Amino acid sequence: MPFGRYAPFEPVDLPDRTWPSKTITKAPRWLSTDLRDGNQALIDPMSPARKLAMFELLVRMGYKEIEVGFPSASQTDFDFVRQLIEEDRIPADVQISVLTQAREELIERTAQALAGSPRATIHLYNATAPLFRRVVFGIDRDDCKALAVQGTQHVMKYAEKYLGDCDFGYEYSPEIFIDTELEFALEVCEAVMDVWEPGPDREIILNLPSTIERSTPNVYADQIEWMSRNLSRREHIALSVHPHNDRGTGVASAELAVLAGADRVEGCLFGNGERTGNVCLVTLGMNLFSQGIDPQIDFSDIDEIRRTVEYCNQIPVHERHPYAGDLVYTSFSGSHQDAIKKGFDALERDAAAAGVPVDEFRWALPYLPIDPKDVGRSYEAVIRVNSQSGKGGVAYIMKTEHSLDLPRKLQIDFSRVVQEHTDGEGGEVTPEQMWEIFEGEFLTNGPRVGLLAHRASSRVDEKDVLNVDLRINGEIREIEGIGNGPISAFIDALAAVGVQARVLDYTEHALSAGSDAKAAAYVECQVGDEVLWGVGIDGNTVTASLKAVLSAVNRAGR
Amino acid sequence: MPFGRYAPFEPVDLPDRTWPSKTITKAPRWLSTDLRDGNQALIDPMSPARKLAMFELLVRMGYKEIEVGFPSASQTDFDFVRQLIEEDRIPADVQISVLTQAREELIERTAQALAGSPRATIHLYNATAPLFRRVVFGIDRDDCKALAVQGTQHVMKYAEKYLGDCDFGYEYSPEIFIDTELEFALEVCEAVMDVWEPGPDREIILNLPSTIERSTPNVYADQIEWMSRNLSRREHIALSVHPHNDRGTGVASAELAVLAGADRVEGCLFGNGERTGNVCLVTLGMNLFSQGIDPQIDFSDIDEIRRTVEYCNQIPVHERHPYAGDLVYTSFSGSHQDAIKKGFDALERDAAAAGVPVDEFRWALPYLPIDPKDVGRSYEAVIRVNSQSGKGGVAYIMKTEHSLDLPRKLQIDFSRVVQEHTDGEGGEVTPEQMWEIFEGEFLTNGPRVGLLAHRASSRVDEKDVLNVDLRINGEIREIEGIGNGPISAFIDALAAVGVQARVLDYTEHALSAGSDAKAAAYVECQVGDEVLWGVGIDGNTVTASLKAVLSAVNRAGR
Repeated sequence: MPFGRYAPFEPVDLPDRTWPSKTITKAPRWLSTDLRDGNQALIDPMSPARKLAMFELLVRMGYKEIEVGFPSASQTDFDFVRQLIEEDRIPADVQISVLTQAREELIERTAQALAGSPRATIHLYNATAPLFRRVVFGIDRDDCKALAVQGTQHVMKYAEKYLGDCDFGYEYSPEIFIDTELEFALEVCEAVMDVWEPGPDREIILNLPSTIERSTPNVYADQIEWMSRNLSRREHIALSVHPHNDRGTGVASAELAVLAGADRVEGCLFGNGERTGNVCLVTLGMNLFSQGIDPQIDFSDIDEIRRTVEYCNQIPVHERHPYAGDLVYTSFSGSHQDAIKKGFDALERDAAAAGVPVDEFRWALPYLPIDPKDVGRSYEAVIRVNSQSGKGGVAYIMKTEHSLDLPRKLQIDFSRVVQEHTDGEGGEVTPEQMWEIFEGEFLTNGPRVGLLAHRASSRVDEKDVLNVDLRINGEIREIEGIGNGPISAFIDALAAVGVQARVLDYTEHALSAGSDAKAAAYVECQVGDEVLWGVGIDGNTVTASLKAVLSAVNRAGR
Repeated sequence: MPFGRYAPFEPVDLPDRTWPSKTITKAPRWLSTDLRDGNQALIDPMSPARKLAMFELLVRMGYKEIEVGFPSASQTDFDFVRQLIEEDRIPADVQISVLTQAREELIERTAQALAGSPRATIHLYNATAPLFRRVVFGIDRDDCKALAVQGTQHVMKYAEKYLGDCDFGYEYSPEIFIDTELEFALEVCEAVMDVWEPGPDREIILNLPSTIERSTPNVYADQIEWMSRNLSRREHIALSVHPHNDRGTGVASAELAVLAGADRVEGCLFGNGERTGNVCLVTLGMNLFSQGIDPQIDFSDIDEIRRTVEYCNQIPVHERHPYAGDLVYTSFSGSHQDAIKKGFDALERDAAAAGVPVDEFRWALPYLPIDPKDVGRSYEAVIRVNSQSGKGGVAYIMKTEHSLDLPRKLQIDFSRVVQEHTDGEGGEVTPEQMWEIFEGEFLTNGPRVGLLAHRASSRVDEKDVLNVDLRINGEIREIEGIGNGPISAFIDALAAVGVQARVLDYTEHALSAGSDAKAAAYVECQVGDEVLWGVGIDGNTVTASLKAVLSAVNRAGR
């Protein structure tokens, strides 16, 4: 690999940085650029219908700043901005913004696009990075700064001309901020502020993009802290960051930048955007949520959000995307499943002991950083069992899907049966397949002994007498036994026909409420040299327990 | 959103942390756990064939430490380890490792799985985090530490019993390290080391997993730096990290942990693994590469790597996955495309001026953090043009796909034409569609004037005389004109039939080398009030230029 062609990113000399000792305590301001940076990166850019669906989703979720397009660059965008304004679709607490390059005719057209809007922000950018100055524009620093200054003047001029009644905001981005010399980025921002004159009730948004991510995220944080410290009029600035994800560290860049002083984050839902995407607003918001911080955004039906975004972008959300992917609330491995099952049990116990509904109780669960229910998902719906699974997952499925609360040792016994199946055939075991395996193993009559009928007589202080009609190896036999209860009487009776069994453990529970409920009985038996479990299910609790004994006897016979 | 259910992650009190001032200067040791942590998280775990394909890919790429399974937990894994050993498939410079829980019978079976291997590592883990001690195992700190100590003793015992000739290594993980009290994690690691007795030529790998990512990555870095400082026998420890990606910051966690002292990183290709996945080894390696650091791994055919991994995991790599996704070397927006085109031109000029082949020249290009060619990809193959595109992308496609080097103003002219098309019909414009649009706009005869033939007489120091046969509105006419060259003579001739045109700009170039090459001519004309470009392509350079004039004239007539 020709790594020698590449140079390391120059770090910032900021030994007294303060951000590593800080923690995030509240949500930053969010700007969604799904309709601008996101849309411009789509193979199939959004149609007007898809744009509107995205806008309405963003509003519904609670985004208050929404970049809706680049109207001077695309007629579709221009028309969409007009539609929002003319159809009065912008709620009173939502500020739309539009992007423009720093050229007068484009700025005028941008202002025209916004005419009649009650509230709007124009977002002006020009490239300030040395590579762009030299290679793309052939300009020097002064030319570059002049572009930003004149652009700002033109924004003010055309805002005055077209946007008289508009509650008007201004955002400026020195493009490829991360590659721009810090002191020059500062110089340009200061020059822009000299024109805009921010002050009380006259904010300026200064947005410092990591347009192409090129350094570890701590370096971006250093850059942001340096700017935050050195900018004048800081209290009138909304310091904004706009991370991309080329190194896969967009989320970290945003978070460390917020530690470093950023007030505002621009991104897209599920990380859409140029190349590797803008930073993912869903992940950022849910990261705050998981730390007990109000994200100010409603993610409570994350699947609905995802479906809408997939419709608008025509790009899928990955199976492993944090908080929203198909697989992120699953666990396949046995030890994980076991821990999760115990975690749920402990949570219920702890919540009950505290007298708090479990849905409101402090969340602490192995392998699940949040309660899937808080985003409208469930652990149950997606747990999967495969050859890597152990008893925990098997037990969980049997309980939640089939209402069978298997005793611990039976969990181990049955999970081995499931594993033999998965090792042989591979793949995941669905709840239905697991039931088939369970039924085949425990609930099928034969080969040795089948229960036909039983009659018990039981009197207080006396041993039970049990008469049972069995089919043994094809022959129908009536047997009788005596014991402390039906099970021991049955064991006694079985001895008469040559079946030597001993009950080691026994448990039984109802499968549902009501008089017609079925019961499940579990019996651990020693049959000859083998120790194994049997299961019986029946409307009659005695029948269930006798079936369980025969289940064990029959398993021993296989 | 019920954010009140969640508690913030407790940060580490480490005000004198040193990692934020460090930079990464060499690759850490890598361990791929694709065949263990990755495999156990698959809906459809790998078959033996898929396992082998993954193993051979990892070896081919250059991974030297490969965790190949959890043999005591799965018969499939056990059999695969046996297959690797018995078929002698482990190269001399590759160390396989296998995971086990800290239970004697599992450890014995694990050692049995490795019997006959020339080199192998046993990786033992037990859960040390308080939630796991309390809820999952019901044990206290001493019990927990005893499990780790006894587990280590059992590993040594069974390694001695079954792995006499094996170059044997040991790895220990205090599970859910990030949630474990730091001083207790240290205490357990020290106790484990007291048993293993690391020293010269007797390394221990201490792996500190971010099993479920729960904090901003700087906190993980603090935890790692704290451990790295406080561990005894540090020089004999390979300090390893194992980040997951629940907060979308797995890559950052790994990188900051390396800054903080980690020597070794465990992860999976393309971030496969439980839930949101393990940290992505491809992204980490390529991040180093892009900083001029040898990743020690061969990513030069990233599409082949991706295809194999998709086959093994049966999970797709996302379109926006760093370095490997379908869309990551694309740019759709006009300004990006324009900058990239200028960047390529400058790179060629700069490389030529330095006398260095462009493929070896220091990379610096707008919007492309690496040269796609270095991973076997191309910018050309994937550039796309849609309604958000400007002249840059259009010009680039026309040049690379159709060999037409459009003059700058013609780029603007034509990109508007393309944009009208995309605004109307939506979607992406393929190179073929772009050619159709170009042909329809510039190269189609009519409606006004078609060129049939021309005869020129030209003598030095005299004006040219040009005779042209035209079809004008269906009628064939011969016209004659005089000028400084064929174009001006043609303009003169056109005046005679009522076409008033003036040439403002002109350029022409060959489309390919050789005597049968065609030429492309571009002419900017004022026709009546309009200024517009025409294009002509012909084997005859004069014919091409006359066609270009007529192209402009005809466009004005539409």
